[in-house]
Amino acid sequence: MSEAKRRPPYYLGIDLGGTAIKSGVVDDEGRPLSSVELPTEAVRGPDIGLRNMAEAARRAVAESGLEWEEIAGVGLGSPGDMDLPAGILLNPPNLPGWDNLPIRDRLAELLGTPVAFQNDANAAAFGEFWVGAGRDVDSMAMYTLGTGIGCGIIDHGRIISGQHSHGSECGHMIIQAIGGREHPPGYFGRLEAYASATALVLRATEAIEAGEKTTLASALVSGGLTAKLIDDHGKAGDPLAARLMKETAYFLAVGAVSLMHTIDPDVVLYGGGMIASGPAFLEEIRANIKKMAFPVPAAKTRVEYAQLGSDAGFIGAAGWAREVRRTAG
Amino acid sequence: MSEAKRRPPYYLGIDLGGTAIKSGVVDDEGRPLSSVELPTEAVRGPDIGLRNMAEAARRAVAESGLEWEEIAGVGLGSPGDMDLPAGILLNPPNLPGWDNLPIRDRLAELLGTPVAFQNDANAAAFGEFWVGAGRDVDSMAMYTLGTGIGCGIIDHGRIISGQHSHGSECGHMIIQAIGGREHPPGYFGRLEAYASATALVLRATEAIEAGEKTTLASALVSGGLTAKLIDDHGKAGDPLAARLMKETAYFLAVGAVSLMHTIDPDVVLYGGGMIASGPAFLEEIRANIKKMAFPVPAAKTRVEYAQLGSDAGFIGAAGWAREVRRTAG
Repeated sequence: MSEAKRRPPYYLGIDLGGTAIKSGVVDDEGRPLSSVELPTEAVRGPDIGLRNMAEAARRAVAESGLEWEEIAGVGLGSPGDMDLPAGILLNPPNLPGWDNLPIRDRLAELLGTPVAFQNDANAAAFGEFWVGAGRDVDSMAMYTLGTGIGCGIIDHGRIISGQHSHGSECGHMIIQAIGGREHPPGYFGRLEAYASATALVLRATEAIEAGEKTTLASALVSGGLTAKLIDDHGKAGDPLAARLMKETAYFLAVGAVSLMHTIDPDVVLYGGGMIASGPAFLEEIRANIKKMAFPVPAAKTRVEYAQLGSDAGFIGAAGWAREVRRTAG
Repeated sequence: MSEAKRRPPYYLGIDLGGTAIKSGVVDDEGRPLSSVELPTEAVRGPDIGLRNMAEAARRAVAESGLEWEEIAGVGLGSPGDMDLPAGILLNPPNLPGWDNLPIRDRLAELLGTPVAFQNDANAAAFGEFWVGAGRDVDSMAMYTLGTGIGCGIIDHGRIISGQHSHGSECGHMIIQAIGGREHPPGYFGRLEAYASATALVLRATEAIEAGEKTTLASALVSGGLTAKLIDDHGKAGDPLAARLMKETAYFLAVGAVSLMHTIDPDVVLYGGGMIASGPAFLEEIRANIKKMAFPVPAAKTRVEYAQLGSDAGFIGAAGWAREVRRTAG
């Protein structure tokens, strides 16, 4: 972006993942000035991970052409579970060994500046609410479809993070009370066990092992069975793969309908890797929602793909820092 | 209440139901000064119904010993579905023939004063939030268990009524995506189809007709099979009745867990006729929630019975009128 167009103040966002850290600087209208990605090296422990986060942040500022002093706020989005008000990771499944880490204050110390802390899926949703597919609405919910199913709900500018930091975990709604699939271990029937990329691959694996005829069979043998491959084979006409994608859209619609009968937002968004499937998958979700929801929300609730791609996390974390600064004074 | 203890201003609440209208005056601390019940006579149409609502309101004021001029606000809680901002009933299943009725403004005209309008289950939840089992929390959800399952969510003083007046309809979350029971007609797998009093009787009927041995069988023949009877027979040791009550508690817990992973409130409340079952039923719900929710909300979320009984509706409607007056300035 040309310097003339940039609109201060500027905010830095950090999107922490189990594999990679993405960081960038955005201006006051959420436009990215820089974007840097570094490996998390999560297995090397939180000290190395925090060092990598700080390094990604510094590089993002350097790449933006700004000085540290020009950054008005820093936001961090992190996988959970967590205690948000305390800024502590509790027992995060994607960051093994990072238990009970005071991540917010440790990072603030490394950077020499306060850090606004959020759940990663909430941060991504907040990014879409601020400058993405939810920018013209008051209330939205967003699912991030990947290995798991993240969720963020924004209601009139407020992130629904809950009284115990477990709000907006809609991937863990129970959609099958009787005979539900087990995932995570010990938990049954949750949306994530049916409609995440991981669940899709598992459901395909079970069908192949049960002897269903499919062009996916050789991929299972070679270890190359992925959600993307299933989607590709479905589009190429493989009946099992096509059915699995249709069922995934149905399960996602079930989750959306429950949200529409609870929060009743203006818009339900889908982001994350699986939306690469394209418009037909979205249409299938929409068609199922229309059949299952009450008539008024069925007719009026917009169902869309997210717009910020994998930048949503750091843009939203930066936007959250901006929001915290604004509401603090 | 003695006149000395009454604390002005005073508010009038009206709780409209398919069978009866309940109205009462409360003081500024939500304490009822009067309570009047009249038949709705819904089948005689909205003109008669509105006349009965106005009559109940007038009698409630008279019984309170106050003059109309001392009433600072009037609130109405009504069954849906509805357009809340417009004050219109759309196509309410419990009030056949009341379609597209501008109920709020028609009642305001009859009473000569503005009316604050809410969904009945939201109003009941707001009553509990104001002066009942939720009075010491910031965020709560309440299920009203009866013929159907009503729900109200209050988050930091705001009723989650949604962008299309379909928020907090958590009895219509989908808890069984595959092979779900049908109810209402054309809709499948909703909580209400499993855990309402109606659903309990239907599940018992099916089990008896399928030949299960039970002390309930004669009640089915005589037409006297009710949720209360099933509960009584379960307590008396009938295995089918006991199992049905346990399953009902499980289904309610499934719904609560999905809410806890979405709103993550301080407390989940249960009100309505079915809580007459008593403490063991509540304990069964709690035990299931503890097994199914994430550890932190499982440990910290309070699960309780509501405290205001059948007065919750008019107290909450009056409280909503008070809230609207306060937030208006």
